[in-house]
Amino acid sequence: MTEQKATNVHWHEGDISREHRGRLLGQKGATLWFTGLSGSGKSTVAVALEGALYEAGRLSYRLDGDNVRLGINKNLGFSAEDRTENIRRIGEIAKLFVDTGVIALSSFVSPYREDRDTVRQLHEEAGMDFIEVFVDVPLDVAESRDPKGLYKKARAGEIKNFTGIDDPYEPPLNAEVILNSHEMSLQEEVDTLLNVLRERGII
Amino acid sequence: MTEQKATNVHWHEGDISREHRGRLLGQKGATLWFTGLSGSGKSTVAVALEGALYEAGRLSYRLDGDNVRLGINKNLGFSAEDRTENIRRIGEIAKLFVDTGVIALSSFVSPYREDRDTVRQLHEEAGMDFIEVFVDVPLDVAESRDPKGLYKKARAGEIKNFTGIDDPYEPPLNAEVILNSHEMSLQEEVDTLLNVLRERGII
Repeated sequence: MTEQKATNVHWHEGDISREHRGRLLGQKGATLWFTGLSGSGKSTVAVALEGALYEAGRLSYRLDGDNVRLGINKNLGFSAEDRTENIRRIGEIAKLFVDTGVIALSSFVSPYREDRDTVRQLHEEAGMDFIEVFVDVPLDVAESRDPKGLYKKARAGEIKNFTGIDDPYEPPLNAEVILNSHEMSLQEEVDTLLNVLRERGII
Repeated sequence: MTEQKATNVHWHEGDISREHRGRLLGQKGATLWFTGLSGSGKSTVAVALEGALYEAGRLSYRLDGDNVRLGINKNLGFSAEDRTENIRRIGEIAKLFVDTGVIALSSFVSPYREDRDTVRQLHEEAGMDFIEVFVDVPLDVAESRDPKGLYKKARAGEIKNFTGIDDPYEPPLNAEVILNSHEMSLQEEVDTLLNVLRERGII
């Protein structure tokens, strides 16, 4: 957005492509897929990164429970089947954002490796950057934070199939980025991600 | 994108909002919902508008069968129930784009009034612009164009529940814009839409 003088752009014919939109925005679309336990710090770093990108004049958009679980995926529950469909839809939405030129910040527990790998594959087939960010903290750290009081309820049996308690979290085997939010400052986490985006020519 | 010097933007704290993103882009997000018979000219005008917006440095994104029916909605067929879910999901995706600051150009037959009105309501509840664009041509005009040969197949009984043949098209009662693509030039159609976007302060 800083380098492109829109009035100098001349479009003649044919469909507007991903490359056109990227040129208009002065960036390349990409998906940053934050995964990790509830309380690991996914949303915290996603929000901080969003702010840093905005300061740098970059367009990003966060996909999270607030705008996805209450919107397009409100007809999905927490069965294994619905969790898979939840992640599939989020992955497809992220792809639409990447196609638009936007940096999509997806922030969901997304506990199953196969579901995440499916989203990765969908991106790679379309020639899109998929950056898996594993926000990795020990369960006891996440549980001691318990920002929404969910672990307490899960331990009391009030919530069933809670990831880390009675449902598995399958850690990424080849995440592009690992953030140990209990050992890194938020600034360090954001700088790490900004560097990855720069190295890939996304920003 | 032309008026905002990104480097002069200073973000301090709190979440980045729809307003921030709009300021960054120098535009306001909105949904243009093109509805009409197959062959009415929805995609033709959406593509032309997309080009005109790009020339003006505006970020838009087309939602159509290619990127929606083959992606997020590939698990939906053409039953009445699936058609409704198809439109609901597209409406929710359009909302995410509007929230991002993008001008979403949705181009689907979307034959049922109730489904379109639901999407309108979802936008209005969120304080978002929803502009229904009825691309209105007589059935015989659309059928004579038959760009994909679908009417021929429907008349031959090879496609069932085809809108306009053996499934109803319910025209909008209060569309913001009506385009009679058989009586207007493509340039006139695009100019009409650009004027609406300007009047609403979207561009």
